[in-house]
Amino acid sequence: MSKYEHTITRRVEFSETDMAGIVHFSQFFRYMESAEHDLFRAVGLSVATNVDGVHFGWPRVRAECDYTSPLRFEDLVEVRVVVREVRNKALLLDFFFTKVSDGGRTPVARGALTTVCTQRNADGGMSAVAIPPQITEQLVSAPREALEPS
Amino acid sequence: MSKYEHTITRRVEFSETDMAGIVHFSQFFRYMESAEHDLFRAVGLSVATNVDGVHFGWPRVRAECDYTSPLRFEDLVEVRVVVREVRNKALLLDFFFTKVSDGGRTPVARGALTTVCTQRNADGGMSAVAIPPQITEQLVSAPREALEPS
Amino acid sequence: MSKYEHTITRRVEFSETDMAGIVHFSQFFRYMESAEHDLFRAVGLSVATNVDGVHFGWPRVRAECDYTSPLRFEDLVEVRVVVREVRNKALLLDFFFTKVSDGGRTPVARGALTTVCTQRNADGGMSAVAIPPQITEQLVSAPREALEPS
Amino acid sequence: MSKYEHTITRRVEFSETDMAGIVHFSQFFRYMESAEHDLFRAVGLSVATNVDGVHFGWPRVRAECDYTSPLRFEDLVEVRVVVREVRNKALLLDFFFTKVSDGGRTPVARGALTTVCTQRNADGGMSAVAIPPQITEQLVSAPREALEPS
Repeated sequence: MSKYEHTITRRVEFSETDMAGIVHFSQFFRYMESAEHDLFRAVGLSVATNVDGVHFGWPRVRAECDYTSPLRFEDLVEVRVVVREVRNKALLLDFFFTKVSDGGRTPVARGALTTVCTQRNADGGMSAVAIPPQITEQLVSAPREALEPS
Repeated sequence: MSKYEHTITRRVEFSETDMAGIVHFSQFFRYMESAEHDLFRAVGLSVATNVDGVHFGWPRVRAECDYTSPLRFEDLVEVRVVVREVRNKALLLDFFFTKVSDGGRTPVARGALTTVCTQRNADGGMSAVAIPPQITEQLVSAPREALEPS
Repeated sequence: MSKYEHTITRRVEFSETDMAGIVHFSQFFRYMESAEHDLFRAVGLSVATNVDGVHFGWPRVRAECDYTSPLRFEDLVEVRVVVREVRNKALLLDFFFTKVSDGGRTPVARGALTTVCTQRNADGGMSAVAIPPQITEQLVSAPREALEPS
Repeated sequence: MSKYEHTITRRVEFSETDMAGIVHFSQFFRYMESAEHDLFRAVGLSVATNVDGVHFGWPRVRAECDYTSPLRFEDLVEVRVVVREVRNKALLLDFFFTKVSDGGRTPVARGALTTVCTQRNADGGMSAVAIPPQITEQLVSAPREALEPS
């Protein structure tokens, strides 16, 4: 039941556009997060996880996106998330954005997130910790060929 | 040092506009919250208040806005918040939006929020409680004449 | 094929929450808009409509929401939009928010939008105009009994 | 009057936080854009520029951010934008985020944007064009030493 990739489809909403008539570039990072969290749900997990009473969090240490084509209101966009690497304390995810229309499939962007597994301390702070096995059993590094646009 | 009104000025940001070329209507509610929180700070308070170790929160029970004129990118807008009424457990705030330009002052919207003072329970839930005196000493109901557009 | 109500279902996203751990109150207005636009699509229309070469827009003149219960990350929420009234130049929509879980259905909020049909002028401004028949044939005022929580 | 760097200061707003109690990572890209647009204004320009009747736009082709420390509600953050390079058709900007408090200055993030100068075509599309001299006279590449955290 473990997974290394997952795809969601969204329709661009009006409030996601800006006065240039296209989806605001910051919105792509929210799309990435939506795909990531749906991947977690697809393997029976949630990013809001408590394991044995310990609360885990997943702050980002790096986010990036390359944009090749704009998205507009009511466009359908597929966001495919691929697990590039499961490290001891970090998760590296790649994202491929594809616009889907009657005219075919158009790549519109490619992104990546690096996320660290943290545990809430008694003082409210966060410390990086090893990703618990309940999670690494479900999310696994993708084979090299999955890390290409589809 | 108590207050019943407060004004902030903001410049409209690109990401606050939508494909119609104007500020998205939902953004006005974020402007209201910014003015409200700056009012709290102006009297030495924060909405993220702990009084005697108890954590208070301020969920909204009602929000409304009437729009008369659009706001566009880089417009300067004044948001004036006025304390309509301090009730035992609730705060009623009115908001007046005015665009400021070389051409003069243009009313663009008028809004209102009703917010309830709550206390975090041991089970994580929230219960409405009387607004603590540390707050009611600082925020007071406005005289009737302050509740008009300026 | 005309309609007077429509329901969408959304799962609350992480970026829609705030530090109080609940969906930010301004987000409910974006949910309303999503339901409204999906209603348009359900009758074969789009809010980004050109009729006979004329571009129509739908700025809001009023928005309101009453909140009765919070929404949290990953909650499933139904947003039902009902056409309260189709006026000559304005559309009045009501919204009913219901949280859906294994434990049953919980009303969480009720909202309303008043939107004016406008036409883009040669100078870039907007004028209120009669809603074109292509739209009033599709969207019709709801019977009274539809204007209640379901 | 030409510039190669500019700094804005913002106070973190409630709606910019998420349920983890920190500023959502996507918000840092909006902060970058705010600093960028204020840089434009500081040299008498706007990103919504018309030069000789031609409308210019600035879509992003790349955005990235590295996060080292979280920002929380009401934190004061300085965002310094530095012009890394003015290319023929593209602008490369670096961003340095610093939290400012009584306890001193803490670097919290570092970002970058690559933006392309485009011109609106008759068909509504966009083509990359050389950055007009009215802009390159005002925005110049920074000396190497400016491209370091301050």
